[in-house]
Formats: sequence, C-alpha cells, structure tokens
Amino acid sequence: MENNQFIEALEWRYATKKMNGQNIPDDKLETILEAVRLSPSSMGVTPYTVFVVKDPAVKKELLPHCYNQSQITDSSALLVFAAWKNMTSKEVDVYMDEIAATRNVPVESLKDFAKAINGKINNSTPEEMENWAVKQTYIALGFGLAAAALERIDSTPMEGYVPAGVDQVLGLDKINMTAGCILALGYRDEENDFLAKAKKVRRNKAELFKVV
Amino acid sequence: MENNQFIEALEWRYATKKMNGQNIPDDKLETILEAVRLSPSSMGVTPYTVFVVKDPAVKKELLPHCYNQSQITDSSALLVFAAWKNMTSKEVDVYMDEIAATRNVPVESLKDFAKAINGKINNSTPEEMENWAVKQTYIALGFGLAAAALERIDSTPMEGYVPAGVDQVLGLDKINMTAGCILALGYRDEENDFLAKAKKVRRNKAELFKVV
Repeated sequence: MENNQFIEALEWRYATKKMNGQNIPDDKLETILEAVRLSPSSMGVTPYTVFVVKDPAVKKELLPHCYNQSQITDSSALLVFAAWKNMTSKEVDVYMDEIAATRNVPVESLKDFAKAINGKINNSTPEEMENWAVKQTYIALGFGLAAAALERIDSTPMEGYVPAGVDQVLGLDKINMTAGCILALGYRDEENDFLAKAKKVRRNKAELFKVV
Repeated sequence: MENNQFIEALEWRYATKKMNGQNIPDDKLETILEAVRLSPSSMGVTPYTVFVVKDPAVKKELLPHCYNQSQITDSSALLVFAAWKNMTSKEVDVYMDEIAATRNVPVESLKDFAKAINGKINNSTPEEMENWAVKQTYIALGFGLAAAALERIDSTPMEGYVPAGVDQVLGLDKINMTAGCILALGYRDEENDFLAKAKKVRRNKAELFKVV
C-alpha cells in the first residue's frame, strides 16, 4: 500500500455528528468487523464481546441513554464493545483451549501462561479488571475506526452515553459486561453536519511528540 | 485501497517478542507518528503526550521497569503514551486557541464547548480523569499498530511495565503524566522469536460478535 493512502483515509475521517440513515454494504461491514477481530489485546485475552446493533427498535431504545445523539438511530450499525466486568479462570480455560486448538499444541504446554493470566485476575480488584477490559476495547475501537476510514465508511467513536442504561437495554448487566465504548457506522449527512466541512484540529507534531 | 490489504497487514502483524536491534527508516516512523497524531480522542482533547524514545541509554534505564523485556532495548523506537493525570482549564484554553486558529473562528464562539469540557473536569475525580486519559492513549496505540502493520514495521503493544518506574525515568512524575501504554517499533528476530511463526489466535466471529 502507498504510504499516504492510510494517512489520507485518516485525514478524511472525522467524528460524524449527523448521519443520513443509509445502510452500509455488508461486505464493508464485514471488513470492519474483521479488523476489529484481528485487533490485539492484553495477553491476547480479548476480554470483551462486540454487540453489532442493527435493529431500529433497539437503537431507538438506546437513544435516550446516549443523550439523544442522532447517530444512534441514523447509523447503519452500532458496535457496542461490551467489556467483561470480571473475567474468571473459566474464561482463561476457554482461551487456553482456543490456543491449543489453533496451534495444535497440548493444553498442558500452556499451563504457565494460564497461571500468569490467573495471577493477574487474582491480584486485581474487580474495578481494576473492569478498567483493564475497557482499555482493550479502545484498541479494537481504533482498529474499527481505521478500517472504516479505509473503506470510506463514516464513523463516530462514542463515550457520551450512560453505561448503566446501555447495559440494561442490551442485557449486559445480566451477563457481567458493560459498554466500554461505542462505534457508530454509517454515512455522513454532509449538509446538516456542522463538522463535515470543518478543518481537523490536531496538536502539532512539536507539541504532541517529545523525542528522547 | 483494496479491501484486504489492510486485513492482510493485520494478519501479518503480531506482538513481536524478540526484535533484532535494526533501526526503522525515518520516513516509516514519520508515517506511524502521523497516524498517531491523527487518531481521535474524547472531545478531540488529546489528553496525552507521546515520548518517542530512541536513546539507547534511556531504553536501558527503562528496561528493569519493563520486566526486562528485550523489545525495550532491541526496538528502534519506543512510543510511550504519557497520559495527562489531571487536565485543568488551562489545557482547555490552549485547546480552544488551537481550534480557533485552525478553523479561523473567534475563541468566544467556542465557550459552550469549553464549558462542557471544564464541566467534565469538575465533575470527575482525579482518578476518573486519569482513567479517561489513559483510555484515549489506547486509541492512539491502535492507530500506531495499524500504521506500523501497513508499513511492515514490527511492533509490540506493551502493558507489562511498572508505571511508577517508567514515569520516573522519563520525568513524567514531575509533569503530572503517567505512562498509559507503550508501543515498541522495530524488526522481528524471526529465528529467536517463538511467536513469529505461531498461528494467530483470535476468537471466532460467532463468539466475538452478537448481532442484535
């Protein structure tokens, strides 16, 4: 790929404030989801589940919990990155089985790795585990945003919602998860989005980076 | 860009455990930094500074605080994403000036936006502000990882370090910042990296995604 195709895509993207309600093609959504699936996470654990919300009725139910931001209902799909609030050794066992099956190695050969992850779980408070899981969702959010930009699909990374409300609508509260962040995907409504033509504001290199 | 060039790059990348000490070309590092610079953050605030560590002596000093992981010293550059521990209205003012200058609008026209950010600051505990800033560094980490993969530069996203130690070496403790996450950039030492040829393990689509 040419160097600047990625940079161009990132310059093209912006946090879309008004979407036009059009659906994005399935193949583009699949590419974005595949990028999300390939995103790394701490120790490869992937302590989250991604809810892909397409149902207009569910979006409508989410709306008041998201400060009535119109992208919730005008997006084509909402990715709700549901962080696991309190991972246990049960999930570690499932992960070890996945590694063993993928790499064709005996699960016993992974016992030190399992011990390290279980050690982290045992030495962390539930709050620390939740924070850690939420942080992993932000890497996936980054990968989803980058993939969407390359596909010229508009997107909005969203923190502006009441987690308890979103959790309740999607039933996350019942499965020990919480909405870590949300990514709305769709098409900009250029005429009605004040940000669509605004110049991107970013700190300049000399301020953002300190070379040591 | 072809759909699958990005996916191919993400399949190519892995958390490199052993690097070979070779330097990466300046233009590739610049592209990765530009992707980081373009990454979005909550309200566009970018509550972090990125330390680009190239000095071998500094890397060596960081090593024991990073559990002696060899990528610290064998990488070409380490990006230490230093989260602002406690943003104040002073930084909000600077940000408003940046927006005003970039978009050529009077700073007074931004007062509601400034009020919203200051409201967030005033309604959050220092711990909440720090968590929020750290989360933003993970989006930038994601953009940096994606850019590196597209440039076929190897990388390691790192959480395995003692923040207090890293903060002290880089003097972050004195400027109210803390290391949110680290990205090592360099080239894999394929022969000596047990992960270099291991098949990537990711949760399958049916498990990771729930369509609603």
